Formats: sequence, C-alpha cells, structure tokens
Amino acid sequence: MSVQFTADDYAARMRRAVEAATAAGLSGILVGIGPDLTWLSAYKPTAVTERLTLLVLTPDRPPTLVVPALERPDAAAAVGAPALTLVDWTDGSDPYQTVAPLLRPDGRYGISDATWAMHLLGLQKTLPGTSYESLSVCQPMLRAIKDEHELARLAAAGAAADGAYGEILGVRFAGRRETEVAADLAALLRKFGHEQVDFTVVGSGPNGANPHHEAGSRVIERGDAVVLDFGGLLDGYGSDTTRTVTVGEPSDEVREIHEIVRRAQQAAFEAVRPGIPCEEVDWVARQVIREAGYGEYFIHRTGHGIGVTTHEPPYMVAGEKQPLVPGMCFSIEPGIYLPGKFGVRIEDIVTVTADGGRRFNNTDHGLGVVA
Amino acid sequence: MSVQFTADDYAARMRRAVEAATAAGLSGILVGIGPDLTWLSAYKPTAVTERLTLLVLTPDRPPTLVVPALERPDAAAAVGAPALTLVDWTDGSDPYQTVAPLLRPDGRYGISDATWAMHLLGLQKTLPGTSYESLSVCQPMLRAIKDEHELARLAAAGAAADGAYGEILGVRFAGRRETEVAADLAALLRKFGHEQVDFTVVGSGPNGANPHHEAGSRVIERGDAVVLDFGGLLDGYGSDTTRTVTVGEPSDEVREIHEIVRRAQQAAFEAVRPGIPCEEVDWVARQVIREAGYGEYFIHRTGHGIGVTTHEPPYMVAGEKQPLVPGMCFSIEPGIYLPGKFGVRIEDIVTVTADGGRRFNNTDHGLGVVA
Repeated sequence: MSVQFTADDYAARMRRAVEAATAAGLSGILVGIGPDLTWLSAYKPTAVTERLTLLVLTPDRPPTLVVPALERPDAAAAVGAPALTLVDWTDGSDPYQTVAPLLRPDGRYGISDATWAMHLLGLQKTLPGTSYESLSVCQPMLRAIKDEHELARLAAAGAAADGAYGEILGVRFAGRRETEVAADLAALLRKFGHEQVDFTVVGSGPNGANPHHEAGSRVIERGDAVVLDFGGLLDGYGSDTTRTVTVGEPSDEVREIHEIVRRAQQAAFEAVRPGIPCEEVDWVARQVIREAGYGEYFIHRTGHGIGVTTHEPPYMVAGEKQPLVPGMCFSIEPGIYLPGKFGVRIEDIVTVTADGGRRFNNTDHGLGVVA
Repeated sequence: MSVQFTADDYAARMRRAVEAATAAGLSGILVGIGPDLTWLSAYKPTAVTERLTLLVLTPDRPPTLVVPALERPDAAAAVGAPALTLVDWTDGSDPYQTVAPLLRPDGRYGISDATWAMHLLGLQKTLPGTSYESLSVCQPMLRAIKDEHELARLAAAGAAADGAYGEILGVRFAGRRETEVAADLAALLRKFGHEQVDFTVVGSGPNGANPHHEAGSRVIERGDAVVLDFGGLLDGYGSDTTRTVTVGEPSDEVREIHEIVRRAQQAAFEAVRPGIPCEEVDWVARQVIREAGYGEYFIHRTGHGIGVTTHEPPYMVAGEKQPLVPGMCFSIEPGIYLPGKFGVRIEDIVTVTADGGRRFNNTDHGLGVVA
C-alpha cells in the first residue's frame, strides 16, 4: 500500500508552482481539466466538457478553482480542496467574466497545455491585455522532478508491467490475431495491479514498422517479429515498456537489427547523468543507429517523461537543452522501422539518480522468443 | 447493420464546412484531435497527445491534414483519407512552421473547441497577424443538423438505452452500492449494443441532489429516490437518458416533485418545433418548475445537443437564440435537486421534425419502482 498524498501535499505543490511562476516573471498559472489539475489539486472532473473548470494560481490570493455550479460538490470533495477557494458559475452566464476579476488585466500567465482552445480564446477576448504561454513552454519542468512517493509509484508501475511481459512470453502468438494478444496484455496489466490500461501495441510483421500501430486483425505468423509496447496507470502513475519478440527463431536480419537497437538503448541509458541536456540522450541513441546505417529508419524521438501521464516533459529530443535532474523519469525507446518488413523497439522507463540512471523496467533486453 | 459512411460522405462534410466558413467571412477552419476531426474525416488518432495533428480546411486548397510523421500511416488508413492531402512533421521540428504556409498571415480562422491551448498559442506565435474564433462560437451548428443515417444511429442508440432501462428495473437496488448498480447499467448498455459507455450516474437519496454525482459507495436503502442517467456510443453515435426511480413506494414529496419535473419535461418537448429559439425550450421547462415554486432548485440548463459526442451544440439554455431546425438532436432534461434530501431528473433525446419533436427515448415517464 503506497503512501496517500494529503491536502498538505497538494497545497505544497500549488505553492511551489506559484513560486516557480513568479520566479519566471509570470503573473500566475491557469490550469484547465487534465493531468496538471489532477497533480496540483487531486481534482479530476467526471468528464472533460465545454463547461469551464479553471484553477487560478497567483501570488496575491489563495489557489482559486473556478467550477460549474453543478460540479461544485465534486470539486469540494477532492483531497486537495482544503487548500482551494471555490468560485462557481451557472449555466447561461459567462464563465470568463467569473475568471476575469482573479487576473491582472495586463498579466502574463502560463496555461496548461490541454486546456481547450475555446477557453483560451474566451480569456483572450474578455481580457485583451493579458498574454499567455503554454505551461510546457514556460514551466516545462513543473511535474518533471518526482518526489520519493512518486518514484515509488513509478517503480511499482514498472515492476507490474515487467510482470505482464514475463507472462505474455508464455502465451501463444502464432495463428492468433494481434487484437487477441493485445487483450491478453491488457488483462495481464490489470492482473498485476494497473487500474487503467492506456495502450497495448502488438505490431506483428510489417505492422511493427508503424511505430504507432496499435493492434489489428492481422493473424500473427511463425517467423514474425512482434513489437509489444504497453502501459497504463497503477495507483495514478504510469508504466510504459516495449520489447520485441519473434515467433519461433528469428531471421538473421531481425537478429541484427535487434542488436543495433539494444546497443542504442543501452548506450543512451549509460549516458544518463545529472547535468547533461535531454537532447544528448537522444543523440547517443541515434548515433548508434546512424553508425549502423539505419539512421533514416529511426523516425521518432528517443523518449518522453512519465508521471501522472504517460507522455509529458522532459522530452529526449533534438533541441531540448533542459539538463537532467535527479528525480526526472522518462522513457528511452529507440527503434528501427523497415517499411513493409518489420520493426524493432526496446523501451524502459528510467529515472535520473545522483550518479547515473536507474531502470524501472528490468526484463531481459534480448530478443524474446514466443510460440 | 447501419449504412457505413464513405470517403465521399466525409469529402462532402469537409466541403460544406468550408462553404459555411467562407459564408461566415472566415478564411478557413482548423480542427485538432477530437470529435470534429472524427466527424469531418473519420480520423481518430490512437491517443490525444502533445504532438500536433491539425486538419486545415480552406477554400484555396484540398483538405490538408498535418500529422506527426510516425502517425502518418494511421491517418492514411482513415475512411476519409482519400479526400485529404497529408503533410507530416518530424519530432524535433516545429509543427507550427509546417502549418504556417497553409494559412493566410492575416487570416481569421475557426478552430475546434477541444484543440489544445498549446497548439493555439503555437499558431498565434508563428503567425501573429492571424486571428481565431472558437468553432462553437463561429460555426456552432457545424454538426448540429443530422442527416438520415445519423438520425438512424441516434435512434438506435436511444432504443438501446431504453432496453437497458427496461432491464435495470428488474435488478435489486436495496442493500447494494451505487457502484454495483452502475456496473449493471454499464453491462446492460453493452448488452444492447453500445461499444462505449460514457457515464452511468446512480444518485441515490441525497446523492441524487448533486446532478453530476456519478456513483459512489453509498448503499441504497428502501425509500430512496434514485436518479439513473446513463449513455454512451453505439455505432459512433450517442445515447443519454435519465429516469428517476424509487426503492419501494415513493414518499408524497418525491411523488410531488417527480410530477412537476415530468410536466416540465413534457411541456418543453411539446414546445419543440422548427424556428423557435433554443432558449425557449429551456424557458418552457423552467417556467413549469418556477411556477411550482422550485425554480431555485433547477440548477442547470435544460439540454445539450448530441451526435458523435454526448455534449455539443445546440444548447437549450437562456441566451441561446439559435432557431431549431429539422434534424437537430438534443436532450430535454429538467430536474429538481433538494440538497441533503434527493433529486429528480427526466431526460429524453429529441429530434426536431418538420412539425414538432420526436423522442428517441420512449420508456415510461412515470416514477419507476424497484426492489
């Protein structure tokens, strides 16, 4: 049983967010429905709708949550609610007029990425002198450095995903549809404690060459390479791991490509240490693949942060200068995709420690063989 | 088996959207991931992420879909893809620079409500001379008037929800948790053909007085009034219906309140005809409740449109002057909520016909009695 976050924890997160915003020259932070709101206040409305819910964090007043009147009881029941002042608005009224008195007419605000464009436009129209920046641009590292309880949850999610991988190796692949193996993976993630399954990629044969292929009706054949990329939430924190297996013995080509990807993943992992820029992790993985002659077939960034979502800053991508800091957690997932043939990807979640990296996924990096 | 929408259907929708935008003086329409994108192009990415996907609809070029390179194969496989020009961008590059040449530097664009604020800010920064309006403000009726195939799907979804209600009346309520009855409702929606369950509100006793209460751990007792509000998607189109039941015989107070809500719902339904403004439907329902002395306890609008989402324009709310047009579909769902005591709501999906309204929910409007 993991430690539960308390009202004080959420109050501290909101306080730190205001301090960081002030230090960055912002007037405050506006947070619509989404993972930032959940992380800051523990409030997660039943549905994301056109009705405005907005957390206003500014240095001059306590954290204020603007909510539709009919959702006020739900907001008041959130664990973080004791630190919040609730302000509601009623259907038929203009919610941006409710927000306006909470903002400076000439203020510059960070706004959470996933806030709907319609709400940003409503604010811009109501307060034409205000300006806005995306939180992932002006405060990209707001949730990036995990505390010990968050690290414990990510470690538990990773171990659970590893458990699922261990069991999927014993499942029959040949002659079954990708969707059937995907359903097995989802059931295994739940068996090992996930409360939510977010994705179960089963990319067999040529489908593996499409990195975002989920799972389709293709019947898996003997000799196929199969990319398995799966994850979800356990106790509110994410898992995300990828291994590539073959059905029966691998061909020489699959074996060779897999070994290149394995070396790239290992090299990037070994590069992790506090102070290096994120882009260096990407560069190291990419360089191994480039030198092996497959640079053009590694068509995505090397990794993404993970926490209460499975995609968040920091991103391991060319151009990202943000230095690694102990407590950051992200994926390292190089791949090679040969159109019409097959794909190979290996992915672990890694956290930065004082003297390097630590993996939250620890299953074998070799090419798994299934029946 | 319902008729499948074809590439031609999607091409026609996109063409009509451009025509409507041009007629409204817009330079075009920008559509991020969400129901508008699905409705216009049949493309629904696996996940909504920070990676930009944007459909650009303008009169001077064919519909153009900007996608992350690694999701291009998925986009190319969408039913609407034959009418689309795909343009991709690669991790590490600036996606807004990819969009910029497709837009007029001084253009005024409608942008879909649910597009992330980060993407709107990216466009505003890259093209400071452009301006934007929320699609629900500048083109609120884009998806509002359903064609015959859409009406058939909404009717099928409504009939399936009615089937679920018919069976839930035979389920035991007393002594069970709200969450258990909610799970029964979800299973019944699936049994009657829903591929997705979006909400299963079971608001028993005082919980029924919170209109957005979902279902909690409260054990339902004899004598409780219980609000049941449930729906999801069947063949891509929404259901949404509410009935209020009592566990055993109702009290006089529940009976009296229920009859007021029933009369309000019936009066609003009878008011439906082409040409009246949406707000009149709200006013008629509200007036019945006001005259009965409970106006302050009807704390939400009377209804919302439904289609590929379960909340969309047109909204039956004070101030909405949009006239009803045949083919529009929306909920009529007045309620009375007595804090600390109970709530009553009755909801049907209704479509506008040439000479009035037609209900897609047709279960009895009386107070259901369960065991």
